[in-house]
Amino acid sequence: MKDKMKQKIWENIKKVRDLSPLVHNITNYVVMNSSANALLAAGASPVMAHAEEEVRDMVRISNSLVLNIGTLSKKWIDAMKIALKEANKLGKPVVFDPVGAGATNYRTETAKDLLNTGEFTVIRGNASEIMALVSDNLKTKGVDSTVSGESAVESGKLLQQKYKCIICISGKIDYIISQDEIAEIHNGHKMMSDVTGMGCSATALIGAFTGIINDYFEAAISGMALMGVAGELAVKESSGPGSLQIHFFDKLYKLTSKEFFDTIKLQINRYV
Amino acid sequence: MKDKMKQKIWENIKKVRDLSPLVHNITNYVVMNSSANALLAAGASPVMAHAEEEVRDMVRISNSLVLNIGTLSKKWIDAMKIALKEANKLGKPVVFDPVGAGATNYRTETAKDLLNTGEFTVIRGNASEIMALVSDNLKTKGVDSTVSGESAVESGKLLQQKYKCIICISGKIDYIISQDEIAEIHNGHKMMSDVTGMGCSATALIGAFTGIINDYFEAAISGMALMGVAGELAVKESSGPGSLQIHFFDKLYKLTSKEFFDTIKLQINRYV
Amino acid sequence: MKDKMKQKIWENIKKVRDLSPLVHNITNYVVMNSSANALLAAGASPVMAHAEEEVRDMVRISNSLVLNIGTLSKKWIDAMKIALKEANKLGKPVVFDPVGAGATNYRTETAKDLLNTGEFTVIRGNASEIMALVSDNLKTKGVDSTVSGESAVESGKLLQQKYKCIICISGKIDYIISQDEIAEIHNGHKMMSDVTGMGCSATALIGAFTGIINDYFEAAISGMALMGVAGELAVKESSGPGSLQIHFFDKLYKLTSKEFFDTIKLQINRYV
Repeated sequence: MKDKMKQKIWENIKKVRDLSPLVHNITNYVVMNSSANALLAAGASPVMAHAEEEVRDMVRISNSLVLNIGTLSKKWIDAMKIALKEANKLGKPVVFDPVGAGATNYRTETAKDLLNTGEFTVIRGNASEIMALVSDNLKTKGVDSTVSGESAVESGKLLQQKYKCIICISGKIDYIISQDEIAEIHNGHKMMSDVTGMGCSATALIGAFTGIINDYFEAAISGMALMGVAGELAVKESSGPGSLQIHFFDKLYKLTSKEFFDTIKLQINRYV
Repeated sequence: MKDKMKQKIWENIKKVRDLSPLVHNITNYVVMNSSANALLAAGASPVMAHAEEEVRDMVRISNSLVLNIGTLSKKWIDAMKIALKEANKLGKPVVFDPVGAGATNYRTETAKDLLNTGEFTVIRGNASEIMALVSDNLKTKGVDSTVSGESAVESGKLLQQKYKCIICISGKIDYIISQDEIAEIHNGHKMMSDVTGMGCSATALIGAFTGIINDYFEAAISGMALMGVAGELAVKESSGPGSLQIHFFDKLYKLTSKEFFDTIKLQINRYV
Repeated sequence: MKDKMKQKIWENIKKVRDLSPLVHNITNYVVMNSSANALLAAGASPVMAHAEEEVRDMVRISNSLVLNIGTLSKKWIDAMKIALKEANKLGKPVVFDPVGAGATNYRTETAKDLLNTGEFTVIRGNASEIMALVSDNLKTKGVDSTVSGESAVESGKLLQQKYKCIICISGKIDYIISQDEIAEIHNGHKMMSDVTGMGCSATALIGAFTGIINDYFEAAISGMALMGVAGELAVKESSGPGSLQIHFFDKLYKLTSKEFFDTIKLQINRYV
């Protein structure tokens, strides 16, 4: 099964390059540029739009919607809700990044409010953020994760059951949790957390894959696998987080089949 | 005539470096950083300001105004109108980038609303955007162009006649259209469309040239020529869109006379 | 004393890497990404948050607050004031960057309004900005400095006396002014002003140091020293402002003790 999934992921990476899904992002100011560049480098087509007057129309022409609360404020949340409902109405996938959930009540509550407003296809966060969505007393430090991924897996399973969507937990090991399976990706590199917005890029990439792949577990795995493999290979050519950002975009753009299969470390297990 | 224009363009590139025109940008969140860096690298001086309370004052001290609706919303459009009217009052050039016109009604209508609010010096867009401004039934895919530049030239001529300004259409070939002439620039490279905001950088550069060159056709050609030449040379040193962005800034900064004249491919024809 | 201070600065640089202070930034759209990356590369932990609903909570968990008016508007200023008062209440350091003060009345008045709303720990600006805060008739060109640093030192001393905080003036020579001493840093490079947001990164770095060092004069000197040394060394590896931005992040990340002591040019004098 493992090798078959790896083969599927690579086919999916080529599919994104070929079909260039349009990904509508309502995301934070910090990463708009880098998320757009990550999507373009992977072959997808990004659009950023947040005006209440146009988000419905933009959802209509997009393959998927990405919501990210990294620099949230009321008007943006309002626009996210409108876009979310429209995507639900049209059956389009919605990927959610609860940036900084747990850091402030406003973020945690807003994240939960969004989760109760509509249906999500995938939620991707670091361990702290995922845990904050199920626990009422976890406090995180800003937007960086302060707990290990493993300790968040149980929270992820609860979240999966509650919201019936795929849960991704980014960290040293990435976990992708479906109703009955859990995928682990052992790629990436510590230095990636020293570049701002790498998690947000992962979320955006998942948006690209969900836009054209009907099996959302497979789509989420594909996005996280591309992220981990491209990031890990980029680190090897980098002398710090500045050059890493650049090499990461280049690697997304030109990742080869050989590089992918030589690097990817994936395992999938049933847990129920 | 062709060679004389090439000589003029190079003189203009040096003039921007020498005079460092102040370009006031009311632009989108995605490209604020990259547009500022493109202007700085070319020797101009960027300022980003969108508060209604200060846009008039900022227009007053600037050499030109750039309006870009990439991530539009009501308050930003209001500020653009105030700045536009002030620039018109003072006779300062205004460059317009109708990002994503055609993608949603809100964008198309906002673009037309702005065009009817004041006078523009140059409009720069990709083929889809330019066509959306004259056609009521063209639908574009997000913010990327889906039609060829050549098919947009007729639309560009109509737009030129309607709004009495220079029209630039970016694409494989760049077209710059005046009342009676059309310039073609055969530079640039396909990979440039895999870096977000390259079109917006072109618009910002045109802003710099219009700020110090009275012949706006020549100014627009100069901006597009610098863009195409620097981009094309940068691609040669790049292994993907990440490094392209970096090499592009470096090339804007250090482009030499020899590089420019060896690379520029320009032709200008009368069409009436 | 000089050498002792150099030793302290290096210890502080290592301290930021070890303790990873959380720096809450309410800053401008142009530099959010680059400021976050500068903080991460130096070992700090950035968070960007501007919603009135959460700024108090974010201040509470942060080590320091950075306010930057680069792309100001009413709601953002309101949030800055709330955050400022909360930081004052909790005794947390606040660093202020009056971007473009002097360019428009709105900026100058907003900067002064903020200065009168609460207490600041450090103010960092270029010469024009610092002078605009004390003089009523200085006009600057956009956001770039048009006067020499030396001519701003007297203004800086007045500002220090008026607001009882450390004043940093960035330029060819960086000046850091306390109640009775003035430090000069003779590092950095002209090319750094051709990268957007370098001044804002300096402010953000000072935010990191004030977050963990109680002597704010020493903290401000440390931030400016790291900025100047890393920038100067990065320029040597760069062929333009594009690569400079990248090498700067890498150098912040991996600056060695030997590089630091071989490069730093610092002198401190009493002036009263």
